Amino acid sequence: MIVDMKRGASKAEVDEVVKRAESLGLDVQLNLGTDKTVVAILGSNTGQLSTDIFAVLPGVESVTRIMKPYKLASREFKNKDSIVSVNGVEIGGNRIVVMAGPCAVESEEQLREIARVVKDSGASILRGGAFKPRTSPFSFQGLKTAGLELLSSASKQFDLPVITEVVDPGDVDLVSKHSDILQVGSRNMQNYSLLTNIGKTRCPVVLKRGFSCTVTEWLTAADYLLAEGNSQVILCERGIRTFEDSTRFSLDLSSIPVIKKYSHLPIIVDPSHTAGHYSLVPALAKGAIAAGADGLLIEVHPNPKEALVDGLQSLTPSDFSRLMKELSLIARSVGRDI
Amino acid sequence: MIVDMKRGASKAEVDEVVKRAESLGLDVQLNLGTDKTVVAILGSNTGQLSTDIFAVLPGVESVTRIMKPYKLASREFKNKDSIVSVNGVEIGGNRIVVMAGPCAVESEEQLREIARVVKDSGASILRGGAFKPRTSPFSFQGLKTAGLELLSSASKQFDLPVITEVVDPGDVDLVSKHSDILQVGSRNMQNYSLLTNIGKTRCPVVLKRGFSCTVTEWLTAADYLLAEGNSQVILCERGIRTFEDSTRFSLDLSSIPVIKKYSHLPIIVDPSHTAGHYSLVPALAKGAIAAGADGLLIEVHPNPKEALVDGLQSLTPSDFSRLMKELSLIARSVGRDI
Amino acid sequence: MIVDMKRGASKAEVDEVVKRAESLGLDVQLNLGTDKTVVAILGSNTGQLSTDIFAVLPGVESVTRIMKPYKLASREFKNKDSIVSVNGVEIGGNRIVVMAGPCAVESEEQLREIARVVKDSGASILRGGAFKPRTSPFSFQGLKTAGLELLSSASKQFDLPVITEVVDPGDVDLVSKHSDILQVGSRNMQNYSLLTNIGKTRCPVVLKRGFSCTVTEWLTAADYLLAEGNSQVILCERGIRTFEDSTRFSLDLSSIPVIKKYSHLPIIVDPSHTAGHYSLVPALAKGAIAAGADGLLIEVHPNPKEALVDGLQSLTPSDFSRLMKELSLIARSVGRDI
Amino acid sequence: MIVDMKRGASKAEVDEVVKRAESLGLDVQLNLGTDKTVVAILGSNTGQLSTDIFAVLPGVESVTRIMKPYKLASREFKNKDSIVSVNGVEIGGNRIVVMAGPCAVESEEQLREIARVVKDSGASILRGGAFKPRTSPFSFQGLKTAGLELLSSASKQFDLPVITEVVDPGDVDLVSKHSDILQVGSRNMQNYSLLTNIGKTRCPVVLKRGFSCTVTEWLTAADYLLAEGNSQVILCERGIRTFEDSTRFSLDLSSIPVIKKYSHLPIIVDPSHTAGHYSLVPALAKGAIAAGADGLLIEVHPNPKEALVDGLQSLTPSDFSRLMKELSLIARSVGRDI
Repeated sequence: MIVDMKRGASKAEVDEVVKRAESLGLDVQLNLGTDKTVVAILGSNTGQLSTDIFAVLPGVESVTRIMKPYKLASREFKNKDSIVSVNGVEIGGNRIVVMAGPCAVESEEQLREIARVVKDSGASILRGGAFKPRTSPFSFQGLKTAGLELLSSASKQFDLPVITEVVDPGDVDLVSKHSDILQVGSRNMQNYSLLTNIGKTRCPVVLKRGFSCTVTEWLTAADYLLAEGNSQVILCERGIRTFEDSTRFSLDLSSIPVIKKYSHLPIIVDPSHTAGHYSLVPALAKGAIAAGADGLLIEVHPNPKEALVDGLQSLTPSDFSRLMKELSLIARSVGRDI
Repeated sequence: MIVDMKRGASKAEVDEVVKRAESLGLDVQLNLGTDKTVVAILGSNTGQLSTDIFAVLPGVESVTRIMKPYKLASREFKNKDSIVSVNGVEIGGNRIVVMAGPCAVESEEQLREIARVVKDSGASILRGGAFKPRTSPFSFQGLKTAGLELLSSASKQFDLPVITEVVDPGDVDLVSKHSDILQVGSRNMQNYSLLTNIGKTRCPVVLKRGFSCTVTEWLTAADYLLAEGNSQVILCERGIRTFEDSTRFSLDLSSIPVIKKYSHLPIIVDPSHTAGHYSLVPALAKGAIAAGADGLLIEVHPNPKEALVDGLQSLTPSDFSRLMKELSLIARSVGRDI
Repeated sequence: MIVDMKRGASKAEVDEVVKRAESLGLDVQLNLGTDKTVVAILGSNTGQLSTDIFAVLPGVESVTRIMKPYKLASREFKNKDSIVSVNGVEIGGNRIVVMAGPCAVESEEQLREIARVVKDSGASILRGGAFKPRTSPFSFQGLKTAGLELLSSASKQFDLPVITEVVDPGDVDLVSKHSDILQVGSRNMQNYSLLTNIGKTRCPVVLKRGFSCTVTEWLTAADYLLAEGNSQVILCERGIRTFEDSTRFSLDLSSIPVIKKYSHLPIIVDPSHTAGHYSLVPALAKGAIAAGADGLLIEVHPNPKEALVDGLQSLTPSDFSRLMKELSLIARSVGRDI
Repeated sequence: MIVDMKRGASKAEVDEVVKRAESLGLDVQLNLGTDKTVVAILGSNTGQLSTDIFAVLPGVESVTRIMKPYKLASREFKNKDSIVSVNGVEIGGNRIVVMAGPCAVESEEQLREIARVVKDSGASILRGGAFKPRTSPFSFQGLKTAGLELLSSASKQFDLPVITEVVDPGDVDLVSKHSDILQVGSRNMQNYSLLTNIGKTRCPVVLKRGFSCTVTEWLTAADYLLAEGNSQVILCERGIRTFEDSTRFSLDLSSIPVIKKYSHLPIIVDPSHTAGHYSLVPALAKGAIAAGADGLLIEVHPNPKEALVDGLQSLTPSDFSRLMKELSLIARSVGRDI
């Protein structure tokens, strides 16, 4: 941590900063310039300390953190790429993993029809929402437990692992009984009760990026899962909120190489929620794979016109099959399989 | 809802839109221009319908919602200003209500010292965090139940209603036993399990704006509380996330007149979390009252240098007392008291 | 500047950083921690150096600038508040200065009618656009030279200084002949040819904040004017672009105290362009004055329904007169006049 | 345009809207719902009209534009993809066009060295800045005319068309004499004097997206060039400003398919300015091509450590050559060449 003293700060003020640092067991080095004094505070745990501790002291101009606030998710903690294994499907390895299915589970027929398409097109994991966090209390909220049961039955029938969202900390046990992967939605990325409860299971988890959270905050949220002992963490970029209004969210493509640089965790991309419109999904999916993503989470619906939720961003089965073929060419061009 | 058909859309495509609308019991009016057909879909519940229902149909260029998605929080639903009453303190009336206290409850002495300052300066409600949602799992997470007990004991001693945050849907009953007002933090504005559980109590609630949520989404989240029967809802603007980096968040001052225009709910402002630095708090507090806010939520600490959380944004007791005097002049200049 | 070396950076890499700094005549101090080496580079001109100079060297993790990149606009350069004087009207002194008038000059009658209202209501400066930068090439682009002539004639008739926008570097001489204050619009805040040409005049200038520029970038743009010798610079906050869609832009109220903290330049606020709707203008204007702004720039039109540009955000003469009375109460409550 | 009347708007208020529309020669259709009246205003030029014209009338709740504000840049105006031809190099055709070179032209040797790398690696166009718009007036501002001369001499020697930025409307003739393509920088996207002057030439132009402008505003700015008769317009996505701080800007990958959907103009991507760090450039470049971009604008420097401007985001010659090989595989996987 670098404490920049105000021009003309007194020796007593500098001393107070030094004393505070030493009281926390930290190393201190003074840099006395002609204009300014700068105090460097070194130590491997300074990333987890609040900068306020020093910024609040008299004579301090500003405090800059040098260590990252996240720890367990960092490459400094673990350099080797993590691979999450779900019933034999490896996420983060050489193979690109595609998770596909409807936004919401609606019925046994719907789910079965999509599961078949997913399987036949070469995707590896079936997605489907049972608990749906909706902006308005007057919208369809999902089939809940009945939806979970449909998912686990489709999973067995088609031999496909399933992923579904959990929204209430009290539901973690229930959902993890029916699902192979838990999904934490964008609005819950900083729901620490939920993260803590999921961290206590050993269930693989997809942690979606909060739509207004930085990459640093995202990795710090992952630390909540990792700190409880759950190392099966997969990150999912799903678009951030910006001023642009031609798409629902803006895909932050750069987050892929940034995550690869600073973290050992695998990262997948959800082009459907980013775009908000099926016609834009293929371009984003292809761009994500070429930029280095480890997988995709894509919405597919047998009849988007009748979908209860998010029909506009769902691909039809035939569009999805075509996309899978195109993705397989891109994957090969970057030395991977699908 | 306005459905704009593509140039050259066929009659069959227009008919499908009409049929879909009629199947939902909605009124339809066709506007046939020389270039384009526009279908107007009218009905008082179109605000709660997803635009996707029509956008996904063939031949449709775009769909625009005219009705707002929120209902119970709107002035169309209830025109008269709502006033929330907490042990005799009215929020949303002529008097400006100031809620003040430490970010986190740290000890009995700390809380008692601040409670005295709050009381003596003319503020009406004591704030203090017991459950602290922190970005990093390695930071201080609050005194939890012990903190709640300190709060309710300070409340009695100083005859001040208290407000504290609840973060887990499972804790709503516990927290509402000790606190006069529940606070929903910015990161939980769209935590629908939490909102639903709070909606089931009749406890007054401060709903902080999600730091990246629009005013429309905020009022729609308020509908979750109102739909369960809890009408004691107070909104709190606390700054939104933007590209500006000289403050922690950017106060969206415009949200005050916008809320007053579209909603009957009272609105207060938290200048402390917006600014992130004590030196900026007074200007924001004064601007908020002049712009029409019904109250303020301000962090005060007897010794910010030793605060466990957010010391940098806390006012000292003497700065707070001075600010209260300045605010009282502003309040009078806009025809209100403090 | 603080250069944070990678964990395990070699001595040769650290030496290269030191050598580069010394070759630029800068002071260097080494901080050798157990985990990391941090190089502090001190010197009063490091604010103007690019961080890239060091970031590009091998073994460097990141570089943090401590000195601000602006210089002449800073309080460190000049501590005393600057006051800009325009024909006897002082901006930045105790008196709040209101500049008002139509978005675009449309005709002699229109301008004369507004000038009378402006004068009678106690505002001090007449605004009006002659060169209008419009988003679409098919929109009304202003009366240009004819508009300038109407402005200077109204200025004489009503003894009111005038302000108008200049958009082309080649027009600076022409516009400064007819106008007492030059306005640089938001889209031109980083138009360096324009700033340089204006800097060469001694004409007072209002520099509007780029709608997506940080306060730091804004003050650095002011340095372009100041570096050419023009010290008559007034800053104008006019709202920033965010995700919020209920207003045209979001007023960054915090920029007022932030500018007061870091710069000696006066700051005024344009609530009209921020809001985009007349009904929101009074709340923003009042909030700005309470938060410490030195003045306002407000759109007024005798008949907003017939305005050629931005009618929706213009106040009627009677609404403007009422607002001036309300503002005068707020000004007094913060110890100022209007 | 859709005019949504307030609940309870009077017949006279509705009539005024109708009369205003008819006075502008527009078609009007009334939609009388049980709750609300909606007036549809149809006509092919409504995209260029301001919504304010109606929003300002009494009894109007809101006005929604259905037609896009841009015209000449739209697919509705010209459905076939435009191809811009520069000395035999086609941009917007099947072949991916890579423009590469230093941020700033520094010397004859530097430029010659890079030109050779650019040529040998299979890129088609040489880039280099002579007039540099810099944030601070104290930074290196480019070699100006001397830089232009170096560029045109390198162009001849290596038989490579060149592109360079023009920043002052008065310099358009000078720069177009030395350069095959003019570049309008991000900060000048809405510099209408500059656009108008460039529109009057027939010189190919790369219009970079304003870093806080929507796709709609970008295409409307392109209309300024097209309206003057210059049809040689190439769009360039270079990242938008968001809250994310791990990169300089956030690449809006979605803008590629959105532009392809709504406009006939070719689009290229600048990964260097987006990322701000060389290590992130390859991932963004690959993602852009896979998502459908027609070309790239990449910074290359023979010795980034000594670059006068933006060294951190420049690739070395060997990194650039390697990237060109990887890009050629991606291009083939989406059915294109490089």
